[in-house]
Amino acid sequence: MLASSAVLRRQQLVIRCLGVGGYSDHNINTNQKPMQGVRFSSGAASFSLEADAENVLRAITPTLDPNRHKGQAGNIAVIGGCREYTGAPYFAAISALKIGADLSHVFCTRDAASVIKSYSPELIVHPILEESYSVRDEDKSFILENVLGEVDKWMERFDCLVIGPGLGRDPFLLDCVSKIIKHARQSNVPIVIDGDGLFLITNWLDLVSGYHLAVLTPNVNEYKRLVQKVLSCEVNDEDAREQLLSLAKRIGGVTILRKGKADLISDGETVESVSIYGSPRRCGGQGDILSGRQVFVSDSRNPTMLGCIAGSTLMRKAASLAFENKKRSTLTTDIIECLGRR
Amino acid sequence: MLASSAVLRRQQLVIRCLGVGGYSDHNINTNQKPMQGVRFSSGAASFSLEADAENVLRAITPTLDPNRHKGQAGNIAVIGGCREYTGAPYFAAISALKIGADLSHVFCTRDAASVIKSYSPELIVHPILEESYSVRDEDKSFILENVLGEVDKWMERFDCLVIGPGLGRDPFLLDCVSKIIKHARQSNVPIVIDGDGLFLITNWLDLVSGYHLAVLTPNVNEYKRLVQKVLSCEVNDEDAREQLLSLAKRIGGVTILRKGKADLISDGETVESVSIYGSPRRCGGQGDILSGRQVFVSDSRNPTMLGCIAGSTLMRKAASLAFENKKRSTLTTDIIECLGRR
Repeated sequence: MLASSAVLRRQQLVIRCLGVGGYSDHNINTNQKPMQGVRFSSGAASFSLEADAENVLRAITPTLDPNRHKGQAGNIAVIGGCREYTGAPYFAAISALKIGADLSHVFCTRDAASVIKSYSPELIVHPILEESYSVRDEDKSFILENVLGEVDKWMERFDCLVIGPGLGRDPFLLDCVSKIIKHARQSNVPIVIDGDGLFLITNWLDLVSGYHLAVLTPNVNEYKRLVQKVLSCEVNDEDAREQLLSLAKRIGGVTILRKGKADLISDGETVESVSIYGSPRRCGGQGDILSGRQVFVSDSRNPTMLGCIAGSTLMRKAASLAFENKKRSTLTTDIIECLGRR
Repeated sequence: MLASSAVLRRQQLVIRCLGVGGYSDHNINTNQKPMQGVRFSSGAASFSLEADAENVLRAITPTLDPNRHKGQAGNIAVIGGCREYTGAPYFAAISALKIGADLSHVFCTRDAASVIKSYSPELIVHPILEESYSVRDEDKSFILENVLGEVDKWMERFDCLVIGPGLGRDPFLLDCVSKIIKHARQSNVPIVIDGDGLFLITNWLDLVSGYHLAVLTPNVNEYKRLVQKVLSCEVNDEDAREQLLSLAKRIGGVTILRKGKADLISDGETVESVSIYGSPRRCGGQGDILSGRQVFVSDSRNPTMLGCIAGSTLMRKAASLAFENKKRSTLTTDIIECLGRR
């Protein structure tokens, strides 16, 4: 009952976003046009070249409506942050807020929680995950239940889970996260898989296989491992679009955003690329911004592609603005500062 | 096999940096000229006066190429940070990012880690070192193995280790760091020794003696102790260049950057000085910036000298810009803010 009302709410968000005239952007505010040039074939593979990224962005950005209340413009959760990594989940979570989400949660280990809280008072940080070193074998099943209980309390309220930034590779922690993915799937909550989350799903493809609300955002190395595992071959840059299409299809129609000089996006039916803007800086953390910006991902196939195009465009625009100003000394925090600027 | 590919990668970085036309600087962007005036005699000692610092900087700065991916513009690690000191390793690590490195790690004690993490989400902080007070004698060899295992997991990926900022002088911790230096040397990873790292190597010179990829960056007191220990005499400012040359030669051709009103640099074969720019402020932490900025240090003799000239120039330029603005109230964080500015 609760689940179906949440699905309805998310679908209404999509319909509102996509309805002609139902979009306005107080943020980017370029000349508004009806949504043209957003090309999707529903059947056979189509290979459009560059996505009409700015138009997509304009079309799917939700209206800022004074009648709406907290949470309606987006409530996301990042699952990540361990003893070793705290920057990545922060970048993902704060980026979601900076592009317009109302609420941004982080579920991380106790070690990571106080550090992530210290980066920003804007985030809601839940110190609930545990790594093997802090757990006795006989306590594991009890702790696993506890972790799932804590996440489930919130699950129906989330519009999207971002799984993986700064997650680390501790076996017990990854075991808990596998269960969280299963619960998200049962509740039809869209998931974005990045960083160590990709390590997890590359080894356990069933976790996401066939789930149309899953988005994978691999960088060059993560993509290489995914291609090797799923297609049993090496990355072929000559035929990059065809290979990406096959990969997405083989994982049952998940959407894959392959990060690179141009970002390539496919859901197994179409391939789009986004290459406008960008920066030559490759400082660590930019991928985390992108994952956090998948706040537009919603319950419907095409909107997942659109969300990727929008996320990629916003990231590249902000990186380009930051680079204009800071050049080689650009850091990821400088890019976040430019999110939402024109 | 892995080691040789890493050496190759670092050598390619040097070749790319030094190739005529293979450099461009989106940051400093003064009139670009082919690399002239970079004087190195490969045999007998040469005593050029002021290094052509800006030209060196322009020549060795790697190209920002949109085809490259995260990590290829530099991945450095700072070994330092203990219960007492947390600022110094932060200054060193963030400075590396601010001059263009992609990834910057800190290996420190557990006490220091959460504090250093909280200074900036940009850093990857590993809480793996231990001080004697937290370790029982019978656990020491086990912990030592653990520490080395954690650092070794990453070693081949690092382009440079900066050893010493905020390290402290705990005997067990210094014992671990000695072993890390030996492993870095076995893997041909360049090392920069600063702060308490200089206390360590002044007492155990064999750790760096004869290692051409080692850079020592002593301040006035650290230099004094080094001269006393190695040359068994006092510092002679009348004949500063000759004495520095002898010192570098006696330690088997390591490169020494003697910090002062003018920075003097020698690898035992040549001596260069850098005195442009600078600031009369002597706030603590500036030396840490310099050590973190040795991101250009690479596997070849002359590039080590060039890296020192570049690091010194960048540090002095930023200090001068910060002082113009903040005068007597200039802090080290103000200087870091000016890294990369024109």
